[in-house]
Amino acid sequence: MSASREIEDLIELMARLPGLGPRSARRAVLHLIRKRGALLAPLAQAMQQVADSARECLNCGNIGTSDICDICASEKRATGELCVVEDVSDLWAMERAGVFKGRYHVLGGTLSALDAVGPEDLRIPRLVERIGTEGITEVILALNATVDGQTTAHYIADQLQGRVRLTSLAQGVPIGGELDYLDDGTISAALRARREL
Amino acid sequence: MSASREIEDLIELMARLPGLGPRSARRAVLHLIRKRGALLAPLAQAMQQVADSARECLNCGNIGTSDICDICASEKRATGELCVVEDVSDLWAMERAGVFKGRYHVLGGTLSALDAVGPEDLRIPRLVERIGTEGITEVILALNATVDGQTTAHYIADQLQGRVRLTSLAQGVPIGGELDYLDDGTISAALRARREL
Ligand SMILES: [Zn+2]
Ligand SMILES: [Zn+2]
Repeated sequence: MSASREIEDLIELMARLPGLGPRSARRAVLHLIRKRGALLAPLAQAMQQVADSARECLNCGNIGTSDICDICASEKRATGELCVVEDVSDLWAMERAGVFKGRYHVLGGTLSALDAVGPEDLRIPRLVERIGTEGITEVILALNATVDGQTTAHYIADQLQGRVRLTSLAQGVPIGGELDYLDDGTISAALRARREL
Repeated sequence: MSASREIEDLIELMARLPGLGPRSARRAVLHLIRKRGALLAPLAQAMQQVADSARECLNCGNIGTSDICDICASEKRATGELCVVEDVSDLWAMERAGVFKGRYHVLGGTLSALDAVGPEDLRIPRLVERIGTEGITEVILALNATVDGQTTAHYIADQLQGRVRLTSLAQGVPIGGELDYLDDGTISAALRARREL
């Protein structure tokens, strides 16, 4: 054994992060130990805080530190526009673009016959509910331009047809592209040029 | 703001790790939050433990959780062979190869005129001291095959000439290569085929 048990355990846990393998986990841990005052201790505390407080918003599925997230809690975001995304990372990407002023609904995935994912697995019933209770006038379907994403968009459009204005992000989203990989400008352009379904 | 302050803080700290940028830090944090019971909380605790206990071995410069590391503390490792490396990551790489049974001396860098790094900045005085006090009969200079690494090896060889057998890793270390990037087999072969300086 080269390092102590505590350090080996930390390397092993770090290697489970997406984007880090065993080698990069070792390098990250050495870096952390060298900066244990300035980085490792604050990181440990930040992780503990998030571990203790992180939860999904009961209304929209966003991740925050209270039962109702800041966006759902803000009256300013009650514009009547609701942006439907697959994943929290997509919500964060939209927020970084900074052009959308309404609220979100995070599905938590896409419909998939292959993986047996149905509407009730995806917060779709809750979405339908919100249309009435929150005075939603427009639903922007900001799903990924994948087959499953588009299937899901069509399913939701069918459910909501005639009740609200239905739009989708259009210009700028490349075929097969995922929101989280797009730059902020592309997302802004796609939102501004959104089209009727 | 898309996530809460606590989550934004965590993302910002994670982005300071080598190998993670802002995007991969966000993905890592989302992954951690989804697995907050199984991964985030244990990781926070492992980091806190290492932050509290990690230190450099006073004898060899290895990183561990006590003043004298496990290798220096083990009588079994008192073989008379001392392997000199630049960095703790190189020591760990040697240990993973699993063929070296002696002790180490971590310089903490290389001599560098450009960066004004002299022998006293590198635990070289401590190395000279150890030759006498630990009954060292062979010093294996396992420095990287870079200009600075080889300059440092020659400087150390000059200091110790006539007092111990001096060898270096030879076969298998590519020109410009760094130990930490070599596979275990290459390191084993280089150690077995070490040559006299
Ligand atoms: Zn919410
Ligand atoms: Zn030691």
